[in-house]
Amino acid sequence: MIRNVTAVDPQGSTTSILHNRDIVIEGQRIARITAAGQAPAAGAQIIDGTGMVAMPGLINAHAHAAMVLFRGVAEDVTVERWFNEIVWPMESNLTPDDVYWGTLLAAAEMIESGVTTVADHYFMMDRVAEAVVASGLRAHLAPTLFGRDLRAELDESAKAIARFQGAGDGRIRMWLGPHSPYLCPPDYLREVAAEAKRTGLGVHLHVSETADQVRASLSTLGRTPPDHLASLGVMDVPMLAAHAAHATEDDIALFAAHRVGVAHCPKTFLKLAAGIAPVTAMRRAGVAVALGTDGAASNNTLDIFEQMRLAAMLQKHEQEDPTILTLDETLGMTTVDGAKALRQEQELGRLAPGYLADIILVRLDGAHVQPVHDLRAALVYSVRAGDVDTVIVNGTVLMEGRRLRTIDKTQVIEEVTMRAGRVLEKGHGRRLAVYPT
Amino acid sequence: MIRNVTAVDPQGSTTSILHNRDIVIEGQRIARITAAGQAPAAGAQIIDGTGMVAMPGLINAHAHAAMVLFRGVAEDVTVERWFNEIVWPMESNLTPDDVYWGTLLAAAEMIESGVTTVADHYFMMDRVAEAVVASGLRAHLAPTLFGRDLRAELDESAKAIARFQGAGDGRIRMWLGPHSPYLCPPDYLREVAAEAKRTGLGVHLHVSETADQVRASLSTLGRTPPDHLASLGVMDVPMLAAHAAHATEDDIALFAAHRVGVAHCPKTFLKLAAGIAPVTAMRRAGVAVALGTDGAASNNTLDIFEQMRLAAMLQKHEQEDPTILTLDETLGMTTVDGAKALRQEQELGRLAPGYLADIILVRLDGAHVQPVHDLRAALVYSVRAGDVDTVIVNGTVLMEGRRLRTIDKTQVIEEVTMRAGRVLEKGHGRRLAVYPT
Repeated sequence: MIRNVTAVDPQGSTTSILHNRDIVIEGQRIARITAAGQAPAAGAQIIDGTGMVAMPGLINAHAHAAMVLFRGVAEDVTVERWFNEIVWPMESNLTPDDVYWGTLLAAAEMIESGVTTVADHYFMMDRVAEAVVASGLRAHLAPTLFGRDLRAELDESAKAIARFQGAGDGRIRMWLGPHSPYLCPPDYLREVAAEAKRTGLGVHLHVSETADQVRASLSTLGRTPPDHLASLGVMDVPMLAAHAAHATEDDIALFAAHRVGVAHCPKTFLKLAAGIAPVTAMRRAGVAVALGTDGAASNNTLDIFEQMRLAAMLQKHEQEDPTILTLDETLGMTTVDGAKALRQEQELGRLAPGYLADIILVRLDGAHVQPVHDLRAALVYSVRAGDVDTVIVNGTVLMEGRRLRTIDKTQVIEEVTMRAGRVLEKGHGRRLAVYPT
Repeated sequence: MIRNVTAVDPQGSTTSILHNRDIVIEGQRIARITAAGQAPAAGAQIIDGTGMVAMPGLINAHAHAAMVLFRGVAEDVTVERWFNEIVWPMESNLTPDDVYWGTLLAAAEMIESGVTTVADHYFMMDRVAEAVVASGLRAHLAPTLFGRDLRAELDESAKAIARFQGAGDGRIRMWLGPHSPYLCPPDYLREVAAEAKRTGLGVHLHVSETADQVRASLSTLGRTPPDHLASLGVMDVPMLAAHAAHATEDDIALFAAHRVGVAHCPKTFLKLAAGIAPVTAMRRAGVAVALGTDGAASNNTLDIFEQMRLAAMLQKHEQEDPTILTLDETLGMTTVDGAKALRQEQELGRLAPGYLADIILVRLDGAHVQPVHDLRAALVYSVRAGDVDTVIVNGTVLMEGRRLRTIDKTQVIEEVTMRAGRVLEKGHGRRLAVYPT
């Protein structure tokens, strides 16, 4: 039970703010929210929320968690160099153990930053899933299919899915993860979509990240990447489009018609000068636009608070209208819209009875937050990830008083540091894939 | 003495990084930097810097510190509403004590965020200066002249300047602070410039914040705001231009020719959709572009780490070139360029012998920072203000282990909270000034 807390429940166009509340958690779910002191405490584990805000845990709708291994090694470079000369050569070095320890470090960072659900898109997904299960996070995991050998890649994916679908007391959901229309040929994507349909899975992939990708798609296929995906049946299953920075008006209409969710990753876009997604237009069309961090090799951190304020500020800037993407709407992107994008809005992303008990407590006593005239403004524009005090996922406390309960951070950093030198080696000339230029 | 630290000294196009160093401080200055263990410790106060980075304290080149009182009360509104309907009505409520306590809260936030020098532009400047002296911060203070009664305003300004010029063991430097060309008439600005010249002072003012301001200046005066200021003699003295988001090519040439410093405040620009300054062009012309937070009523925080990464990312985005504003250059904006913009580069903004001992120690052991492949990338894109561990200004420790030494934060927050309700009152119909629309 969380005692005497301010309960904040962003709903998209409004935010419910209730002071002096007790939040009763039973099993994996929120049982009820009462006036403080009204709920019987007998036998309950008590967390004192006095002076803090309780809100739904933040949803990171697109990440490559293990890429924290490459934090800070690909700076001030073009997208092409980023992929072909730095990231894909380094990723071809990774061992399954590297991926495991990298994912655990990312999980530590995300828990410390108030993220409770991550939609991860990576390879050696068995080891990612093991790390996620150990960490206590909730995750939607999409094993990357690189568009090379369809049968072999789908088989490996199927094994990871069979092993981890529903693992960790239902915290893990597996989707299919074709990399992108630029790496996966049309027939390959068509078959992936058919497989998703047969097995009842969703598909998480990269879409229209750069203007060049859209131009190349139009010139070789005569269609934008979203139009191409729709024509191959990929939108006939739950689809999560990462980036979509260069979605056209017609693309947006397709997203809306097929309930495609979008994971917007503004820090990556800015750092790689890839352009800013038409978030306002997508939202107006009814598309669920969630926030993602992408990997730390481009974002450098996995901080949804930072993505949230960037998302709002960049739309104001790009649309030259400071009144758009309001505080309420922005808070909703990290919670309800994230749950919608992952097709789990019936039980995730709200601080309300019956919803999964994924809850964070945020301190407001920092000099950078005081005085709190508007709690929503504090959360969107002042609070830092380091202000997150307590993190609960699926009813289990993963961090309290900023102390991690499930991860030995010192050990994880030691393991990662030991692996760091070898992981960076690029002299071997191999690449995990080739970015088309 | 700081023991066994990694000494980081950004210089603009390169960054010196020296591991395992001792930094010896004597009086207000850095005496020497030696290999760890080489400096005799007898009698010295020792700070253990093991595992941390020492770098020059960050320079906040444009702020309205006391406006933390209005944090979060003017959200999702236009520039005109921001000034005329919210901020200026509220500011007309302020008492000298409000300004004192607000400035102390801001000082606490800045120290906790690694800021060691602030160029503040506000009114009731006596009380601002008292708070700054008490806090231990270094400051360039410009009492705001609103362009109403020249003699009365200059007299009041002169009194504050006489009282505080060189106060706090030389930490305080006073400049003149005409608000802006849109509030101050031409004759008024001409006289302020003459006064600055007579008294050997610099001038800190708002310039070309919005496209509308430039259009209005061109239509009424036939000149851009910078051209207008130059014609009135304001650039014949040291000048600090806050914002300059809409500086033209000719304006930039004027800035360069007159060594005008620019304080770039990206978070405010984004939130108010005011446009982004042509930072790249200004830097190319040799203009010192420093970083500022502006007030917390627009920025919401006083965090130069956040301004730093925004500045770099936004130039990459706006210029569609991810290779510009490199890590080294970006770090330099917070340190050497800040000192240049304040005309104090001979003794401020470097971690080097002879320079003023304004030093911060930054922790690198956060999960969001590890592993540290590139220290510069860590500082620009991963480190959060909350990672600042120790702050030294003028040789005096203001924070150690994140505990403030000069400010009782609990008391300050209590005082501010007590004042908060009255300060927000807007029903009286008064305004501190009128933003021309």
